Amino acid sequence: MPNTPIRQTFSYQQQFTVPFEYPVHFTTDLFNPANTLLTDTIDRLHEHRKHRVIVLIDEGLAQAQPHLADRIDAYLQAFPQQIEIVHQPFLVPGGEPVKKDRSALDQVLNILGDTHYRLCRQSFVLAVGGGSFLDLVGLAAALVHRGLRLVRIPSTVLAQNDSAVGVKNGIDRNDQKNFLGTFAPPFAVLCDADLLATLPDKYWRGGIAEAFKVAIIRDADFFDFLCENARALKQRDTQLMESLIQRCAALHLDHIRLGGDPFETGVARPLDFGHWAAHRIEILSDQTFGHGLAVAVGLAIDTCCAADLGLLTASERDRILQALHEADLPLYTPLLDERNAQGDLRILQGLADFREHLGGNLTLTMPHGIGHQTDIHEMPTAQVEAAIGLLRRFAE
Amino acid sequence: MPNTPIRQTFSYQQQFTVPFEYPVHFTTDLFNPANTLLTDTIDRLHEHRKHRVIVLIDEGLAQAQPHLADRIDAYLQAFPQQIEIVHQPFLVPGGEPVKKDRSALDQVLNILGDTHYRLCRQSFVLAVGGGSFLDLVGLAAALVHRGLRLVRIPSTVLAQNDSAVGVKNGIDRNDQKNFLGTFAPPFAVLCDADLLATLPDKYWRGGIAEAFKVAIIRDADFFDFLCENARALKQRDTQLMESLIQRCAALHLDHIRLGGDPFETGVARPLDFGHWAAHRIEILSDQTFGHGLAVAVGLAIDTCCAADLGLLTASERDRILQALHEADLPLYTPLLDERNAQGDLRILQGLADFREHLGGNLTLTMPHGIGHQTDIHEMPTAQVEAAIGLLRRFAE
Repeated sequence: MPNTPIRQTFSYQQQFTVPFEYPVHFTTDLFNPANTLLTDTIDRLHEHRKHRVIVLIDEGLAQAQPHLADRIDAYLQAFPQQIEIVHQPFLVPGGEPVKKDRSALDQVLNILGDTHYRLCRQSFVLAVGGGSFLDLVGLAAALVHRGLRLVRIPSTVLAQNDSAVGVKNGIDRNDQKNFLGTFAPPFAVLCDADLLATLPDKYWRGGIAEAFKVAIIRDADFFDFLCENARALKQRDTQLMESLIQRCAALHLDHIRLGGDPFETGVARPLDFGHWAAHRIEILSDQTFGHGLAVAVGLAIDTCCAADLGLLTASERDRILQALHEADLPLYTPLLDERNAQGDLRILQGLADFREHLGGNLTLTMPHGIGHQTDIHEMPTAQVEAAIGLLRRFAE
Repeated sequence: MPNTPIRQTFSYQQQFTVPFEYPVHFTTDLFNPANTLLTDTIDRLHEHRKHRVIVLIDEGLAQAQPHLADRIDAYLQAFPQQIEIVHQPFLVPGGEPVKKDRSALDQVLNILGDTHYRLCRQSFVLAVGGGSFLDLVGLAAALVHRGLRLVRIPSTVLAQNDSAVGVKNGIDRNDQKNFLGTFAPPFAVLCDADLLATLPDKYWRGGIAEAFKVAIIRDADFFDFLCENARALKQRDTQLMESLIQRCAALHLDHIRLGGDPFETGVARPLDFGHWAAHRIEILSDQTFGHGLAVAVGLAIDTCCAADLGLLTASERDRILQALHEADLPLYTPLLDERNAQGDLRILQGLADFREHLGGNLTLTMPHGIGHQTDIHEMPTAQVEAAIGLLRRFAE
């Protein structure tokens, strides 16, 4: 230990703000050369030069739409003045399991890092696919040269109305959802309604669950819309689905813009309503349940608990459960009744995870009347047990 | 292709700003329990709770200061009201080669991701070590839960006066320096002058090079200070070094705060003066040259080129070269004369890399008179050849 006295010699208080801006456009037939939205978006900063572009497509989407890769390639080739394609589109695995796959991030980094493509911080990554694929590719794009320009082109309801319009990416690790990720606003988001045509039913419905989530805590009119149209939505009315997606996306974007904490330094996570149980259901089902359907069950649990806490009336609770049911969303799964060796419900680990993730102090966003929200800081086990019992009977 | 006409149905312009704030404190004897700077810093948001803390120390530093890990542990244990230590300090390899080591990031992620430590976004990572170590640990800390709170405690001149006070992290890949990284402002930076006591001479001098860099393009008075004190600085006058570090760090922090582009979305990189050659020298030497010493050679080359371009007078050029030499910094290395199979100077690849990194349009910051800067967009090969010739003769 030095003999000289302790001296505090100088302090500097660093302080600055970083502005972020990106457009979210909704269109149809995005890859028809008559539709210039994509090239206009790539050129939106009017930089007067050719833009280097690399395209990555979700393998599952490419299988469902076999001509898609060629159409995208042909589209970009139709604009040789503006665009330099570095390679034909790459197919990359998507779907929820890819977020757990330790080699998947490396695979994408190897593509983006191939020095032949000479990608720089001004180059574009077009990522076309579902939410998990976009989470993976988005993380890789955020890391390479500390951030390439990412244009997200989401192909699922869930991605178009929720995850892909936001500012986060992430992959799982050590059994923890989104354990690794960054906050990285995209360069732009382009939602093509036609990409949803081949979406499997499970994901179509799953996307409706996130709409219920935000409507229940934020927008009573939107909730009415969902109740009125639950049956038509599940029967794949595309016009209604477009309305749902745009309204839900706008609520999500409003929250980020107006919520005062876009990069989530605080402990409140209002858009995580219903998610403590949902994340756990996904893990308990080994990622087979699907995020959207898991969220539906999570909403059902929290709705019952909210009613128990006096935050919703019994008839509001029943209206929510009924609407979820009419949209063909699950309210219950036997996973909810699984117990560990100590006899505790396995699902409760989701609460513990949330508490940990928030620094030891639990904060859960709950509805307070339909269309409004409040935070609670305790969730007694008995309440969860009662909710699950109610939902089990409802399911029977 | 659908038969319905193309419709652009809705657009949302997302827009928000994110504020960032962190203190940079300079002190001595940081881990003396009588010095409360570290605990005060951890508690600077007055959150009224115990803070979970994990400590990672640069292995090289721990070897040079064998009691350091125990001292840090004892320090933290002296504040049981404020601090919960999750584990005794971890030693992690540091030094420039660690940035190339593919397993190093995984090693740090495994430590931070161990669920026994229950780290959350409100938990603290204290990272004590040199710049490469801080780059590696900083990247890992930025990724885990999308960002733990990082307190950087730099232990080299270069880290204290430059890299560790900034907003970047990064590791190398595919032979590209800092190929993977993020912009991630730390929670705080604490510089302890006593940590420099065991710094090897090579790194002590290397740090002086970054001070020359910023002085030459930004601050003529500081340049005078460096000229006057070059000999005393190389002889390890600690008081003078403290002044150097604080002034250099403040210039760096000013640039980030006032430069208008803290996350470098544009193409100008003023703090990269001299770095196109420096990065290449590091690669050509297989990372044995040391970043600081490589920067000295890079400054010497760009200084000669600037004089050739009429941006510096011959006497300004000679004054700079003389001062670098008096500080015992290298102006030349035989690596500069290495040629590839085509007969081109290998060092020129550094210019090509910079051009690529900036989207195909080269922008180099050069001095324009001592203490001022300008951007140039071309660097003829003949000029570089002439500069190297001059420096070779100077070295002889």
